[in-house]
Amino acid sequence: MPELRKDPVIGRWVIISTERGKRPSDFADTQVKKEGGFCPFCYNNEDKTPPEIFAIRPDKSQRDKPGWTLRVVPNKFPALRVEGQLNRQGEGIYDKMNGVGAHEVVIETPDHFKDLEDLEIPTIRDVFWVFRERMLDLKKDIRLKYVMVFKNYGQAAGASLEHTHSQLIATPIIPKTVIEEMEGSRAYFGFKDRCIFCDIIRQEITSNARVVCDDEFFIALEPYAPRFPFETWILPKQHFSHYETISDDLLQHLALIMKEILGRINMALNHPPYNFVIHTSPLQDEPDESYHWHIEFMPKLTRVAGFEWGTGFYINPTSPEDAAQYLKQITL
Amino acid sequence: MPELRKDPVIGRWVIISTERGKRPSDFADTQVKKEGGFCPFCYNNEDKTPPEIFAIRPDKSQRDKPGWTLRVVPNKFPALRVEGQLNRQGEGIYDKMNGVGAHEVVIETPDHFKDLEDLEIPTIRDVFWVFRERMLDLKKDIRLKYVMVFKNYGQAAGASLEHTHSQLIATPIIPKTVIEEMEGSRAYFGFKDRCIFCDIIRQEITSNARVVCDDEFFIALEPYAPRFPFETWILPKQHFSHYETISDDLLQHLALIMKEILGRINMALNHPPYNFVIHTSPLQDEPDESYHWHIEFMPKLTRVAGFEWGTGFYINPTSPEDAAQYLKQITL
Repeated sequence: MPELRKDPVIGRWVIISTERGKRPSDFADTQVKKEGGFCPFCYNNEDKTPPEIFAIRPDKSQRDKPGWTLRVVPNKFPALRVEGQLNRQGEGIYDKMNGVGAHEVVIETPDHFKDLEDLEIPTIRDVFWVFRERMLDLKKDIRLKYVMVFKNYGQAAGASLEHTHSQLIATPIIPKTVIEEMEGSRAYFGFKDRCIFCDIIRQEITSNARVVCDDEFFIALEPYAPRFPFETWILPKQHFSHYETISDDLLQHLALIMKEILGRINMALNHPPYNFVIHTSPLQDEPDESYHWHIEFMPKLTRVAGFEWGTGFYINPTSPEDAAQYLKQITL
Repeated sequence: MPELRKDPVIGRWVIISTERGKRPSDFADTQVKKEGGFCPFCYNNEDKTPPEIFAIRPDKSQRDKPGWTLRVVPNKFPALRVEGQLNRQGEGIYDKMNGVGAHEVVIETPDHFKDLEDLEIPTIRDVFWVFRERMLDLKKDIRLKYVMVFKNYGQAAGASLEHTHSQLIATPIIPKTVIEEMEGSRAYFGFKDRCIFCDIIRQEITSNARVVCDDEFFIALEPYAPRFPFETWILPKQHFSHYETISDDLLQHLALIMKEILGRINMALNHPPYNFVIHTSPLQDEPDESYHWHIEFMPKLTRVAGFEWGTGFYINPTSPEDAAQYLKQITL
């Protein structure tokens, strides 16, 4: 019997469709492969990107030259731009404003053929450290209300370049999905005086049916109502509403659990395309006791079709309990 | 300068990213091709689907045998099932219920190599007629709150079989996206005492910047804040909240405008994969003066990536004004 499950935060129902029960091997033909060739993110092509915003240069090499280990540049085709005024206006019954914001790319390593999971822990930590630093910098521009940090890996997940990178988009409005998530957790807090994510962590540790791995500081779990097979959330065990408040110590542990999750996903699913997104509180907001930052990791194994577009409902052929078992069994 | 635009109904912002401005030819490599081979939707394979729910059989041929021109069968791997009780229950902080509902497939023609747009007008009308008939039948089961009618065309749009078909899924809850759309139009009605879709139609006819085609009864337009390039909405000009109230006369005109839109999209974009979804009021609700049924047609030309998953924001590289121009210029 298929089962309908409700995401406790956002109120989205999903169908866990046991009839279509899918194991990792059913998704095996999605492997991401690198082809090489010309790449604007490789050494000596620094002039093929807009001038760098920031770089880690252990050898103190020159700006926009080789020598960096991590580099942040504006997106060459930015969805939003820093220059100009918002200029909010109507057009009859419609509303619009200029696309003011920021769109940056984090080139995670100079090595074209390494992926995020292949990097050493200190390098992965640098990637998550630079997310924090860029958010703190963008926060100074009070027009910017939200920073979305995300990674698209593999063409099927929307990556247009194969050299490993992640992105930040800062928006002048708080996105709808974020508002819904915050409203959901605020409603729960109003009812229970507890953070819903803290409650999720407690219940998941007790039941242990959906936990993939954890340490003292972080937990990785398959959510109760996942949209996608092997969707995995990574949450700090302690309550923090804003990603950019993460301590250096926690960054180390985040790098460790990210590498572990990527390793397990890649072993179980043969290097699938994926997206991850950092869900965090709006940039200009005060610390919030009802919202809890976390990372949502989504391997791209199924296609979103008409039903999902029309309803916001998702049909998921793999239960999160099964997915957690498969991922736990992997020997790294 | 990129532009941020807000969907007036659902409140979703999209980024019209002129930097990435894309013309129809930029999407030309997505063409759907048919390969043939064994197909459970072809004549003489009627026993490879579950027993038929309904069929049009001009020759009065036997049930589950060849001779039909259109056939409705349960999905072999249903997302939801008619049998059983809802059995709503909690699991700690979580909520679930059994996957009670219906999942039906409309096989639009026995001809494996014809697509919806290749069919004659009376046959296309039959497809839209059978949607109405199935909805009226499913409405009798008061456990069913919503019927979503949709079509996935091409593998990239989620179709698993290439023989042209569409689907109905009846759900025991009203999907989140539908609730949001209804709330948005109700808020507008509360403010203006007018249906927002009726206002959209009036403004679009006046400005004419985004209209693709229309007749006395229907209008096809590119919405002001489209998520996807060449997203096209088809709306009845007269106000109706429920699709299933459509008259035989209107069915004829709907078939005409659907064929025209499919023709224009296929010519402009070289037979792309697509989804369409009928947006309609909940099955058990009374006629509603604030909601207006319509069809949302979405060619599948871009990939949804991390940013979209995290924000509900969409980056669209083709403005609806440009898309309307391209589609209008097509000579059919």
